[in-house]
Amino acid sequence: MSSEIRQNKATKEWVIISPSRGKRPHDFGQRKAERQPVPRYQADCPFCPGNEERLTPILYQASVPGSDSWQTRVVPNKFPALTPDNSVERYGVGPYVALPGYGQHEVVIESPRHDQELAGLGQAQLQTVINTYHQRYLALCAEPKNTLILIFRNHGPRAGASLLHPHSQVISTGIIPRHLRWREEEAERYYDEWGHCVFCDILAFEAADRQRVVLENESYLAFVPFAAEVPFELWIMPKRHQSDFAHTSNEERGALAQAMQSVLGRLHTKLNDPDYNYVFTTYNRPASEPHVHWYLRIRPRLVTRAGFEIGSGIRVNPSLPEADAAFLNDGERGVAASTKA
Amino acid sequence: MSSEIRQNKATKEWVIISPSRGKRPHDFGQRKAERQPVPRYQADCPFCPGNEERLTPILYQASVPGSDSWQTRVVPNKFPALTPDNSVERYGVGPYVALPGYGQHEVVIESPRHDQELAGLGQAQLQTVINTYHQRYLALCAEPKNTLILIFRNHGPRAGASLLHPHSQVISTGIIPRHLRWREEEAERYYDEWGHCVFCDILAFEAADRQRVVLENESYLAFVPFAAEVPFELWIMPKRHQSDFAHTSNEERGALAQAMQSVLGRLHTKLNDPDYNYVFTTYNRPASEPHVHWYLRIRPRLVTRAGFEIGSGIRVNPSLPEADAAFLNDGERGVAASTKA
Repeated sequence: MSSEIRQNKATKEWVIISPSRGKRPHDFGQRKAERQPVPRYQADCPFCPGNEERLTPILYQASVPGSDSWQTRVVPNKFPALTPDNSVERYGVGPYVALPGYGQHEVVIESPRHDQELAGLGQAQLQTVINTYHQRYLALCAEPKNTLILIFRNHGPRAGASLLHPHSQVISTGIIPRHLRWREEEAERYYDEWGHCVFCDILAFEAADRQRVVLENESYLAFVPFAAEVPFELWIMPKRHQSDFAHTSNEERGALAQAMQSVLGRLHTKLNDPDYNYVFTTYNRPASEPHVHWYLRIRPRLVTRAGFEIGSGIRVNPSLPEADAAFLNDGERGVAASTKA
Repeated sequence: MSSEIRQNKATKEWVIISPSRGKRPHDFGQRKAERQPVPRYQADCPFCPGNEERLTPILYQASVPGSDSWQTRVVPNKFPALTPDNSVERYGVGPYVALPGYGQHEVVIESPRHDQELAGLGQAQLQTVINTYHQRYLALCAEPKNTLILIFRNHGPRAGASLLHPHSQVISTGIIPRHLRWREEEAERYYDEWGHCVFCDILAFEAADRQRVVLENESYLAFVPFAAEVPFELWIMPKRHQSDFAHTSNEERGALAQAMQSVLGRLHTKLNDPDYNYVFTTYNRPASEPHVHWYLRIRPRLVTRAGFEIGSGIRVNPSLPEADAAFLNDGERGVAASTKA
């Protein structure tokens, strides 16, 4: 196939899909230097049990019922990008606008085990991690200064991870990024024109078309987006309209754990444990909004963003989204077996 | 200093300046594996003289006057992201919009020497490279389908470069990236409010303030932007209002060569030849536009964009722009000596 330029329906951003430059899906599997064996416990790791004197105060802990041991913990980041003891009042610096670095920056420790891979976590423990995100998300939503709350995970050095012990992060800020405003403006424009949430329309099409679907369960659809920006980008999206991750039920978070376990497990197995980031794109609003829709975006770090991407904002994706989905589905078109996994 | 959140005046994008996480400027110098010595000529390099049978047809060549040898060459990219034999007519794919991969993708070979570093090029040869950009830019502007023309350079593997022989690239497309539209919409809004080009106002402030200036010559000001997204980001901007790189005079391109030579040379020396991208942000319009202003953006690749950046569009810059400028100016505040270099 020669190259095609595709538009992200939700944001109107363009992506150049250029598989002719490229490789077949399995060529993207990350070649890694032989990994040192990782110990279960490491004496100088602040996140390992027993090293609490190196740890910042614990903000939240999920414990094994009827036991002393813990499953997840949340602590303030020891080297925070932002700190809560700041105002959000803006000031001028010459012609510019700035404000103090207000924000909360937390670390979610996903397991007591230093060597635990998220992709290998059981579904119950993964749900505990998601429930922990949910708890902290609700707590941060209660602070009116927090206009943005972002839950994210950096896996591997190419994704910006510096510590090995499995963890995610949550950052809140008192500003609204332009990036999210633009996204929401497009969604509003679509809603005003068609009377639907653009993501609900995308979901309906993908669920029927099935070319890019990698998993469907009772609550979520996981698919490679039509205008995927990078090879093996994946969106896990609630099937019913839901604007905010805060509104998920415990059952829905169980279904999300099942979807994440299957999808992250397949990425791990089929692409040799690729580095990746994932982020929750969500809108912290007290009421449900008709035009925005939260979802989890998984972005493997298999290609480098170079000058063209930086200058134009257009990504060049050397992999065909339909081929990526087929590869994750074992070459079977559609998702027959994998959906039940 | 604790962290500060700064707004890019031109785009309204926020950047978290968080030097408390960080390091001092010299800590960003790239640690590199011992580099293999690079030969002047390499037998399997298609860009080296004598290997023309491996080369795509030459589109442009700058020759040494009165000699057979060449200074720069432009060829089509052998593995183009986009190809010119395509239409730009859009079509529907289910609910989505797409179009064929129309575009031109060219390589500018900057020197016959395989081992020539751009940062070490003499000013005259660097001007020849810039004049070559200018020639190809004008040629691509003449094709009405080209709505975007981007000149860029990837230096080093972290910046996405795959070939060692020194080269830049030019890509044209038949689409307008949202990214540039947003940028221009903000510039229009500023112009409508204040009656000035926002970049002219930024220039006037920076030239007077001097805290972030690293070089000033008769035609250009080079400075670290107030809301620099990455350590040692640098903008080289024409001092007189000019919306399009096409409108530069030969003298101005000489002054640009002088500015680039000094700035790239200092990055090379003081940060141990960092990987970087540069891009020309310019607006190909027949007439001068009052509200947009072209400039060269240099972006060293010293830090990793992680999940927070991907999810929010907000960069976290662990380096203070004023400290970066002072470091490039040998710790002297202002630019006294360096401006004359």
